[in-house]
Amino acid sequence: MTKGFLLVISGPSGSGKGTVCRRLLERNKDLIFSISATTRKARRGEIDGVNYFFVDEKTFDKMAADGELLEYALVHGNKYGTPKKFVLDQVNKGEIVILEIDVQGALQVKELFDEAVFVFLLPPSMKELKNRILKRGTESKEDIDIRLSNAIDELKLAYKYDYVVMNDDVDVAVENIEAIIKAEKLRVNRSQNILDNIINV
Amino acid sequence: MTKGFLLVISGPSGSGKGTVCRRLLERNKDLIFSISATTRKARRGEIDGVNYFFVDEKTFDKMAADGELLEYALVHGNKYGTPKKFVLDQVNKGEIVILEIDVQGALQVKELFDEAVFVFLLPPSMKELKNRILKRGTESKEDIDIRLSNAIDELKLAYKYDYVVMNDDVDVAVENIEAIIKAEKLRVNRSQNILDNIINV
Repeated sequence: MTKGFLLVISGPSGSGKGTVCRRLLERNKDLIFSISATTRKARRGEIDGVNYFFVDEKTFDKMAADGELLEYALVHGNKYGTPKKFVLDQVNKGEIVILEIDVQGALQVKELFDEAVFVFLLPPSMKELKNRILKRGTESKEDIDIRLSNAIDELKLAYKYDYVVMNDDVDVAVENIEAIIKAEKLRVNRSQNILDNIINV
Repeated sequence: MTKGFLLVISGPSGSGKGTVCRRLLERNKDLIFSISATTRKARRGEIDGVNYFFVDEKTFDKMAADGELLEYALVHGNKYGTPKKFVLDQVNKGEIVILEIDVQGALQVKELFDEAVFVFLLPPSMKELKNRILKRGTESKEDIDIRLSNAIDELKLAYKYDYVVMNDDVDVAVENIEAIIKAEKLRVNRSQNILDNIINV
């Protein structure tokens, strides 16, 4: 059995990472979606250990302090983080874990877990990025300008990633990520068992 | 346009690299096969610059001395080598160049051209490797033992490569190499142009 890995799928606002990850997981039932820990209250129908790990503030802060979170952030007054243990348990079982996250979060993960595979999703152009942000229609002109300016800053961080995938067509983007997964499974550092088996049998 | 690359496909005797490369090139007409320089005389139907670059000893030795060959070897009294210029010209045009070569040759290329992508083809087992070598039926017991012993030594060098592909089924092996090619095209170090275009437009 080859070793699994954590695949971090990230990109600026408007890169379409949510849509791409949903489609990727629909098409590949064997992929495991990383489950976040959060201090937010469970909503009706949400199950602890399936949708999120629901924890109180004290537990969350202790996890963060003990280095048990690959990244964490405060969003609208609630804390969200990626528990290291869940990811490591799955990877050691040979599973591929998908983590969808913003650029700041991905760079936090890179600091703590460099052996993950990092994919940067690109919008096809700045014009299209602007269209996508405008389409949401929920933000003020000021907010849109901030989002665009952040996106430009974040695009400049793409060189810290392993792969760059353009999300012009969702299906093409997903197929490219599937090829990355297939290739990464064949990486020599994940194939030590195979080599040992052949030489020793 | 993304940058091309050199894909080195290598493995011990009996790994089936010849068959795999032929199938890969049949299925992917856009791949460029690396053309070797040789001091061997052209056979009927062979064309200079298509099958080989036919050169005399003096020219070959000068190319080797000037560092114009990524690797070279003496086989049955004739010299064969991989001209660096041909590979670089194609890679700079964005092409993917395939080089099928034995393990010793691949490690020479790695010394001189580390940015190439290295794939190690594995036989499914030592038993199957022995069967394949025996099936050729052209060698003495002594030759077979030497080939097997060399193959074991060479398997231990697989960790110097980037990818390990098992050649149990030729079509599966070719599909895996196709995924590697697709993924390597998306590597961030080959995507600088794309990033520049998006940010600057």
